[in-house]
Amino acid sequence: MTRPLQDLLVLDLTHVLAGPFASLTLGDLGARVIKVERPGTGDDTRAFPPFKDGASAYFAAINHGKQSIALDLKAEADRAIFDNLLGRADILLENFRPGVMEKLGYGWETLHARHPALIYGAVSGFGHTGPDAHRPAYDMVVQARGGVMSITGEAGREPVRVGASIGDILAGMYLVQGVLAAVIDRARTGNGRKVDVAMLDSLLATLEHAVAITTATGTPPEPSGARHPSITPFETFHAADGLFVIAAGNDALFARLCDVLGLPLARDPRFATNPARCDNARTLKRLIEAITLDRPKSHWIERLEAAGVPTGPIQNVAEVLHDHQILARNMVVDVLDAQGQPAFVAAGNPIKMSGIADPMSRAPAPALDGDRAAILDWLQKGVNTV
Amino acid sequence: MTRPLQDLLVLDLTHVLAGPFASLTLGDLGARVIKVERPGTGDDTRAFPPFKDGASAYFAAINHGKQSIALDLKAEADRAIFDNLLGRADILLENFRPGVMEKLGYGWETLHARHPALIYGAVSGFGHTGPDAHRPAYDMVVQARGGVMSITGEAGREPVRVGASIGDILAGMYLVQGVLAAVIDRARTGNGRKVDVAMLDSLLATLEHAVAITTATGTPPEPSGARHPSITPFETFHAADGLFVIAAGNDALFARLCDVLGLPLARDPRFATNPARCDNARTLKRLIEAITLDRPKSHWIERLEAAGVPTGPIQNVAEVLHDHQILARNMVVDVLDAQGQPAFVAAGNPIKMSGIADPMSRAPAPALDGDRAAILDWLQKGVNTV
Repeated sequence: MTRPLQDLLVLDLTHVLAGPFASLTLGDLGARVIKVERPGTGDDTRAFPPFKDGASAYFAAINHGKQSIALDLKAEADRAIFDNLLGRADILLENFRPGVMEKLGYGWETLHARHPALIYGAVSGFGHTGPDAHRPAYDMVVQARGGVMSITGEAGREPVRVGASIGDILAGMYLVQGVLAAVIDRARTGNGRKVDVAMLDSLLATLEHAVAITTATGTPPEPSGARHPSITPFETFHAADGLFVIAAGNDALFARLCDVLGLPLARDPRFATNPARCDNARTLKRLIEAITLDRPKSHWIERLEAAGVPTGPIQNVAEVLHDHQILARNMVVDVLDAQGQPAFVAAGNPIKMSGIADPMSRAPAPALDGDRAAILDWLQKGVNTV
Repeated sequence: MTRPLQDLLVLDLTHVLAGPFASLTLGDLGARVIKVERPGTGDDTRAFPPFKDGASAYFAAINHGKQSIALDLKAEADRAIFDNLLGRADILLENFRPGVMEKLGYGWETLHARHPALIYGAVSGFGHTGPDAHRPAYDMVVQARGGVMSITGEAGREPVRVGASIGDILAGMYLVQGVLAAVIDRARTGNGRKVDVAMLDSLLATLEHAVAITTATGTPPEPSGARHPSITPFETFHAADGLFVIAAGNDALFARLCDVLGLPLARDPRFATNPARCDNARTLKRLIEAITLDRPKSHWIERLEAAGVPTGPIQNVAEVLHDHQILARNMVVDVLDAQGQPAFVAAGNPIKMSGIADPMSRAPAPALDGDRAAILDWLQKGVNTV
């Protein structure tokens, strides 16, 4: 089976989320990932609940398909193994605090001199440069400092965090982009590069609309609950049995929405244009809900979809995992145990490629140091026996 | 100046956000991006507020550095130009509804037969396969159906959307990963591939913790406001002058936090371990705030940082754009106008690479069809005159 990154070896010193999420994607695209863990406890997330038969479901979801070797990078024998691995790796990933790799004798300058073609990908809270480079960060700190909390939640109430750890996730995704670009660059130049991605930078890079508003008007946007700040109607509405979403992003869609609801509003000057609808959003919401409250969500979603108006349910995560489109796209996969039996469930690979298999299961998440013998054997023989 | 993707030509049919955000990243990494727009109005976002001197700040923030040519893909003369461009492009991007490219005669099968090395990247709401492939989607629909709204907001209140359009953003980022992986794959096989990314799939792929909890326990998580659902203390706290964040992710950090606050809680059985702290989170929050309410945020942030406890302010977007670390990382750049003067402000490139320039300004966003003459000249002469 051909896979796009099948020729790449990733040596992965990362732990917790941002880095392991990056190497998960590289692995799903075909790279071989060797996870180098701290002896004794390994990646912190091995101890994160929930557990199943003593193994962390969280660790499994983000580390399936990787190999594990435990190395003490301060001990000579293990450093020799690590040096040997470095000589074979295409990409080294780490998410230590800036400076840790230098203290270990594996800083970028040293590595680049020894292994000029090695690509070095680092992800950290604030990056490897700037006054706050050395400060510790977690997702929560970056969501707060990076501005996304200030635009998420209800106006007039305290800010809330995004329920997914997007501070880590976005940085891990930029790290993947950076190291893949460096692989393409290396094909031309023969040289590896250091890729330095900060969680804080990554979050800012994705604020799009809020940055444009702030810089053009001087006033930062406030949270707007379940509404889009500048498109109407583009929010949640009450049906007889709960909330659902309508996103009528332009005048034509608004006219179709009015048709479905039997509301003669498409030419009403209060609602004829998007700016007018934004000015009268509260009135419009009530006029729409006066209709939608009479019937269940499914009634409205079916009719609006038939009319081509973007709409849908608000699903909890259990519902998402049973969504017929998600299942049809093979977006829920089994993570196998060492016996080849399904042990955990994880999200599938969202990058679907022609001519590339999209398997319905994943190789197990590794036991700590579980691939040591195979990796050492491979290093000695120069043959991939695993 | 060398740039990692300098040899790549991206032919970009995308509009609004997910696709243009992907080609923005490819451009920031050095690819030449030719934006092919609908004659007359072009990309919808050219009409999105806010405006400055009649130009959309939103459009500029996401389309700087690209070239524009307006082509009617149903008109013979323009199709000939497009065919010519296809013969030179490495990557074609589109975010039409599935089926539109086939109707235009530019479906993947046709293109792949004519241009076997061309990489075709598509991003859509629900993907090119599955029962809902043809349904329309906006970010709001995907955030609702994809589960992130169900875990964002306050418990017991209506769900809220994430303030940034992460339904589009995440899909655009996966599209970049996919096409870069396809470029690497092509170097080995000589063949282009179709990359098919769905907004709904992309959102699910980033829910990490929520997926693990749901599949391991059978119960989907609920929104938890500004708190992390399974780490304590990892949330907002009131100081004398407002809210700030403390993220003490393990016992050692909690002990340091207690030291700074003068709270003798590190060995208190109610708070000695993370599970205990989660069970007693409401009590702990009050004990901490009984101390933090007496002094301003800056007092606590300074002391906690000195002790190595992750902490920080909750910044609005204006504050983020003036954050000293953000500025030190060159994460706020000028977008120039045609006269070379700063016209707009945009987020910088979060992928920092050794040996690659990280300029403080960006080439202008193109006028609609503004590069037609230069592009036609280049096609005729076979020389890049732009």
